[in-house]
Amino acid sequence: MSDALFDAIKFDANGLVPAIAQQHDTGEVLMMAWMNRAAIEETLATGRVCYWSRSRGGLWRKGESSGQVQGLKELIVDCDGDTLLLKVDQLGVACHTGRRSCFYRAVRDGDLVEIMPVEVDPKALYGGCGHKH
Amino acid sequence: MSDALFDAIKFDANGLVPAIAQQHDTGEVLMMAWMNRAAIEETLATGRVCYWSRSRGGLWRKGESSGQVQGLKELIVDCDGDTLLLKVDQLGVACHTGRRSCFYRAVRDGDLVEIMPVEVDPKALYGGCGHKH
Repeated sequence: MSDALFDAIKFDANGLVPAIAQQHDTGEVLMMAWMNRAAIEETLATGRVCYWSRSRGGLWRKGESSGQVQGLKELIVDCDGDTLLLKVDQLGVACHTGRRSCFYRAVRDGDLVEIMPVEVDPKALYGGCGHKH
Repeated sequence: MSDALFDAIKFDANGLVPAIAQQHDTGEVLMMAWMNRAAIEETLATGRVCYWSRSRGGLWRKGESSGQVQGLKELIVDCDGDTLLLKVDQLGVACHTGRRSCFYRAVRDGDLVEIMPVEVDPKALYGGCGHKH
């Protein structure tokens, strides 16, 4: 990848940058996760989205255990280079809870309510091994 | 606001949580910024989006100097409570560069290219006072 991209990105003190995943055709915002330089390089090289897992401290190839992979359609950088927007094609569900998107709890009438159904049993996604968010 | 929301949100070590702003009807991802508890409370109370400016160290009432305000349509929390999604109605342009969205530079054919026009002269937005991102 050209240096222009990495010159434009401002990684934080931990070498990470937040990345928003948006379904390329429907516009759904699916999730937000973090990437380091290696995750970005792998994502661009393979066309499959790879994040950095802060909890596990390693590369997180989205869908590796669940099968719910994200194909990369476009990688976009914001004005000050501190956030990425990934236009993706999400296979199945993005959320480890089995919902299409991680953004499924909304404030309505002063309460926090679920606005999205579970589409896939999380046990079916991870075979009882727990999730690797 | 009910405690349920603030119980659900995991603020970082600086008391902040990232918030993605998405145009409610078109699905455009406009920007990503940060909120603290006070910014969220003000946003819910007024219906106008207020962030926390990390650079200025104060509340950032979006559009206060530029006029490009964001009306709040819905506030959504993700599965692990560490990111917010704001469905907004953006008046004019979200980006201090005068573009509709801050996400205007995409990787194409190995290069970083601008994919969105400037709609408003930044000088007209800020009267030559610079931007307050």
